[in-house]
Amino acid sequence: MTESVKYVLSEDRMPRSWYNLAADLPKALPPVLHPGTGQPIGPADLAPLFPMEIIKQEVSTERYIDIPEPVRDIYRQWRPTPLYRARRWEKALGTPAKIYYKYEGVSPAGSHKPNTSVAQAFYNKAEGVKRLTTETGAGQWGSSLAFAGALFGLEIEVFMVKVSFQQKPYRRALMETYGARCVASPSEETASGRAVLKEHPNSTGSLGIAISEAVEVAAQRDDTKYSLGSVLNHVLLHQTVVGQEAMLQLEEAGDYPDVIVGCTGGGSNFGGITFPFLGAQLRGGKKLRIVATEPSACPSLTKGRYAYDFGDTGHLTPLVKMHTLGSAFVPPGFHAGGLRYHGMSPLVSHIKELGLIEARSYDQLDVFEAGVQFARVEGILPAPEANHAVKGALDEALRCKREGKAETILFNLCGHGHFDMQAYMDYFSGKLKDIPYDERDLQRSLDALPKVAAE
Amino acid sequence: MTESVKYVLSEDRMPRSWYNLAADLPKALPPVLHPGTGQPIGPADLAPLFPMEIIKQEVSTERYIDIPEPVRDIYRQWRPTPLYRARRWEKALGTPAKIYYKYEGVSPAGSHKPNTSVAQAFYNKAEGVKRLTTETGAGQWGSSLAFAGALFGLEIEVFMVKVSFQQKPYRRALMETYGARCVASPSEETASGRAVLKEHPNSTGSLGIAISEAVEVAAQRDDTKYSLGSVLNHVLLHQTVVGQEAMLQLEEAGDYPDVIVGCTGGGSNFGGITFPFLGAQLRGGKKLRIVATEPSACPSLTKGRYAYDFGDTGHLTPLVKMHTLGSAFVPPGFHAGGLRYHGMSPLVSHIKELGLIEARSYDQLDVFEAGVQFARVEGILPAPEANHAVKGALDEALRCKREGKAETILFNLCGHGHFDMQAYMDYFSGKLKDIPYDERDLQRSLDALPKVAAE
Repeated sequence: MTESVKYVLSEDRMPRSWYNLAADLPKALPPVLHPGTGQPIGPADLAPLFPMEIIKQEVSTERYIDIPEPVRDIYRQWRPTPLYRARRWEKALGTPAKIYYKYEGVSPAGSHKPNTSVAQAFYNKAEGVKRLTTETGAGQWGSSLAFAGALFGLEIEVFMVKVSFQQKPYRRALMETYGARCVASPSEETASGRAVLKEHPNSTGSLGIAISEAVEVAAQRDDTKYSLGSVLNHVLLHQTVVGQEAMLQLEEAGDYPDVIVGCTGGGSNFGGITFPFLGAQLRGGKKLRIVATEPSACPSLTKGRYAYDFGDTGHLTPLVKMHTLGSAFVPPGFHAGGLRYHGMSPLVSHIKELGLIEARSYDQLDVFEAGVQFARVEGILPAPEANHAVKGALDEALRCKREGKAETILFNLCGHGHFDMQAYMDYFSGKLKDIPYDERDLQRSLDALPKVAAE
Repeated sequence: MTESVKYVLSEDRMPRSWYNLAADLPKALPPVLHPGTGQPIGPADLAPLFPMEIIKQEVSTERYIDIPEPVRDIYRQWRPTPLYRARRWEKALGTPAKIYYKYEGVSPAGSHKPNTSVAQAFYNKAEGVKRLTTETGAGQWGSSLAFAGALFGLEIEVFMVKVSFQQKPYRRALMETYGARCVASPSEETASGRAVLKEHPNSTGSLGIAISEAVEVAAQRDDTKYSLGSVLNHVLLHQTVVGQEAMLQLEEAGDYPDVIVGCTGGGSNFGGITFPFLGAQLRGGKKLRIVATEPSACPSLTKGRYAYDFGDTGHLTPLVKMHTLGSAFVPPGFHAGGLRYHGMSPLVSHIKELGLIEARSYDQLDVFEAGVQFARVEGILPAPEANHAVKGALDEALRCKREGKAETILFNLCGHGHFDMQAYMDYFSGKLKDIPYDERDLQRSLDALPKVAAE
């Protein structure tokens, strides 16, 4: 038997700053627009929702932004996370490729999400905020913010997409154990929620709806702000500890990726693992292929339009330019709840438009097949979201086998699937199906995109 | 905010041998007896159930036994596990005590159990075994053997205590994802199971019953052996990697425990964390207090009799001298399923009799209260079994506070509670109750202990 190899990285090499891709972009990001005026927004427009330090990070073009020491102190509980060489999987596949995966499931909440939740809680606490609202899909983000809230003494209120709230009571229980309050969205607690329920009483919810509810509540109280788990620049920034560590660990392994695969919902996992490598390439380093994988039932990068759109269904957010299925699009209730978002991070969308990355979509059954295969050889049970990256890495490894190429493949196993066992049970019992979206729904949603003069 | 501190231990300091407490005992363990003859058994009596290398380890008095390189290679996937200084918890308690915890929940199966499952799978594979049967309570052990079986290509058949099988379908799903077969015990598949069901059709099962079923199946086929997750000497031996690592990590921290707390079901977690320290004490090192904590609903160490007894309910095993509630005792269906065993490891029982350790029992509600408090400050959600150690450490820390003593407390957080969320939900909803055992049942069970001439 050939064994996995772990690259630990000593704690003193844990990154001291986050890497900001904006510093190395060949072309600047399109501005964020005010939905009323159609004009670029300023910091004051965001101040009701975010603390000033976060707003500064959102628009910064500094290449490196210091990680505050109290945040690093908490990171140290689980960081640096291990990088594994998947030797057992390579052998089982008979591929000449070398497969490495970074494993973020070792965090207390079980995914990469605490990298940003801890930072966001820190900045909010420092500016006197008492309460944070947020949305969550599968619950990875909600439990990560609940964890960070418990550490900093912040009240946390989580609007959880209803289909996940029902499928995953244990993820909710984890949030409650950390002391957070969890509400099924759409709810009766907000005007946005009530509006959706009036039109669609049986709505299973979506991240877009849950964001509207969380934003609405945050805007109502001075001591309350809003926290987002993906999509925005500052969130992707915080996740770059993942890629920076992986780069150092691969250096220890004497290796460098030819291909990086990242699964994409809002884009934060993808940005975290890929941006430090992409930045190195943009500064003249080795060129590599970067592949985003997403669910074919919610294919913003592969089927969405690159256009200005709202981040939420209730149209309470500013307009950002991104790949979007339209804010009215409600994806079917498949199991990778963290990937059920109508839009894509503006940064990830931008580099897709610049031709710096590829994108690919996968069916639910195929990603679970890959995930089960991975669990049996590597011993780690991935989250359904992470299975999209596993499937992408698998396809690259099989391509290498066909082409006889010993390429180096890197992916981020962004979370474990301990709270997703119902999905695995459904997979084994044959209940899990591929659930296509409705083409007419998508068309209607795209037709309803806001008209923006700037385009 | 004061932060947790993590002691990682570099991989080259991962133990190369297991530590065998038998080498340092002031008095040898009482022999294992054949139930028919009442005479000490020999290796040949155990050969139908275990591979020869394991039988040798079971009776060895060598102080150190080499860990085979293929086993170390697999250990490396998650070992050395972190040792944490619980600074945030210390501060929340206002205790002058220093609290350290070793965290075994980072293993792929989520507990300390793979330390022995991987070793057992290795030895069985090396001796040509094709299939392993076992029992499991909460499922920590079953999923650990399933994990090891997947790596070594062994078929795994798990008899899971019925109450846990019903309470924890997701733990079962994890075993199945690893490729194991899982059966609710008592089952119709064995004579032992059918005998129990005939008398108690609604039996919720027990580890004693599940062991009978697994042993019975293993004895029937030449290519099948039996694997036990706790109790026996070789299992405790394999777990000593935990305590050995903790000793090195505390050395790095410049510290040494005054008290070690370990939760006890069969004794393997307890032996793993404490034996290397106890051995050092027996060889003239620093004297320390060692505290075993167990559920008051299944109190083998605190209320059991020290006597020869069967390891299983169906009386298929040899007789071992241990603290026992009697093999007919069926504990109430409380949530720490891994601690629902009528007996206690002969080694742990022996050192209890020698006055080398203390024992204490706790009610279910108190251990959950401690566990939730721990999760909110340290961010890690413990398994219900581990909550017994958390509660023990909490009591020691509060004693230190009362007495104004800056003692050093060590415990092993032996597993995470990701598959135990129903228990936490029941706790929060008020459904979780203390479930006392029936005094008359216990008395009947103790009255039925086998009569052994040697006593």
